[in-house]
Amino acid sequence: MEETKKISAAVIRRLPRYYRYLGELNESGVQRISSKELSAKMKVTASQIRQDLNNFGGFGQQGYGYNVKYLYDEIAKILGIDRPHNMIIIGAGNLGQAIVNYEDFEKRGFVIKGVFDNNPEMEGKTIRGIPVMMMDAVSDFIKRNEIEIVALTIPKKAAKEVGKLVADAGIKAIWNFAHTDLNLPDEVIVENVHLSESLMRLSYTIANEGR
Amino acid sequence: MEETKKISAAVIRRLPRYYRYLGELNESGVQRISSKELSAKMKVTASQIRQDLNNFGGFGQQGYGYNVKYLYDEIAKILGIDRPHNMIIIGAGNLGQAIVNYEDFEKRGFVIKGVFDNNPEMEGKTIRGIPVMMMDAVSDFIKRNEIEIVALTIPKKAAKEVGKLVADAGIKAIWNFAHTDLNLPDEVIVENVHLSESLMRLSYTIANEGR
Repeated sequence: MEETKKISAAVIRRLPRYYRYLGELNESGVQRISSKELSAKMKVTASQIRQDLNNFGGFGQQGYGYNVKYLYDEIAKILGIDRPHNMIIIGAGNLGQAIVNYEDFEKRGFVIKGVFDNNPEMEGKTIRGIPVMMMDAVSDFIKRNEIEIVALTIPKKAAKEVGKLVADAGIKAIWNFAHTDLNLPDEVIVENVHLSESLMRLSYTIANEGR
Repeated sequence: MEETKKISAAVIRRLPRYYRYLGELNESGVQRISSKELSAKMKVTASQIRQDLNNFGGFGQQGYGYNVKYLYDEIAKILGIDRPHNMIIIGAGNLGQAIVNYEDFEKRGFVIKGVFDNNPEMEGKTIRGIPVMMMDAVSDFIKRNEIEIVALTIPKKAAKEVGKLVADAGIKAIWNFAHTDLNLPDEVIVENVHLSESLMRLSYTIANEGR
């Protein structure tokens, strides 16, 4: 753990992309790859790849390149996906349902244990076999099922209150899709997915890069 | 245009958040705010705020602070959302439907003109009043309706092909939710939303920041 502490945020942002490419190579039976070949595939420079991966100790060997499966597994460990994480979704609307139905998350170890909503019509339904429960049961469910991650796919006006509720129930990490800051204590990890902001960055590029 | 060219990517990443806070202040009738007050609200330092906003010329005045509405409008211009952008969604599954139903995008000028899918059961249906059409009509639709942005909410195996199809039809910008690189010519702007990667950054933080 200590060794990974110094890694820059920019490297961390790029790691999942290495992980994806190495996973695809591994699935297609490639056992080793040079930084030059990986560079051509990923469209980043070979020196960037070497620098990034050197952060984690010398995975590559001169004249051999990288062992694909070994590097893939090591990056999984760094990303903390070498063990499962229990997750619940709060908000059973389209976005919540999209996340439940996206099976890749489960393949990476994010196990969705339940979906919560406050619409009584949803009670007792299932999405991909996962039960939809009402919000009054959420705190108890978090404690009984060792839930680590909550995905918040609810409108922003309810998000702060629900964020506080799950933090009080002991949640470590919130994957927040509501377009607001949750203002929770520092020990609660929040990863925001603000789709509006992503769309504005796209329009910024259209307006300013004049392509 | 020239003036905004030098702005760093980090500042651009933060701009939509300023825009959101200024919009909320404006809606609640606040006419001016000091960098210190804005700092307390946004939980970033006042000096960061001053530095960021100085990139766009001195919006603030000593002893007065920032004029909320003026700054809000100026940031809208920088972000290119002072004019509408026509958009279509390709992929009418849960995620595509979530985007169509999220009315905030339209409020910011992203006007969804149509939804496309290849499932014949969806043909002729509407989502929030917007028609679902079949993929064989997409190129023609893009040309006739001055579509600038395509949101790709389809599985990754189809994404490269569909990306090429819409680029050939003249699309400037793709908002890509498929978990793959599109490998399009440089003149096509691509903003990726890779949800798996966001979730991995969350698990990285759980594993490494030991909170």
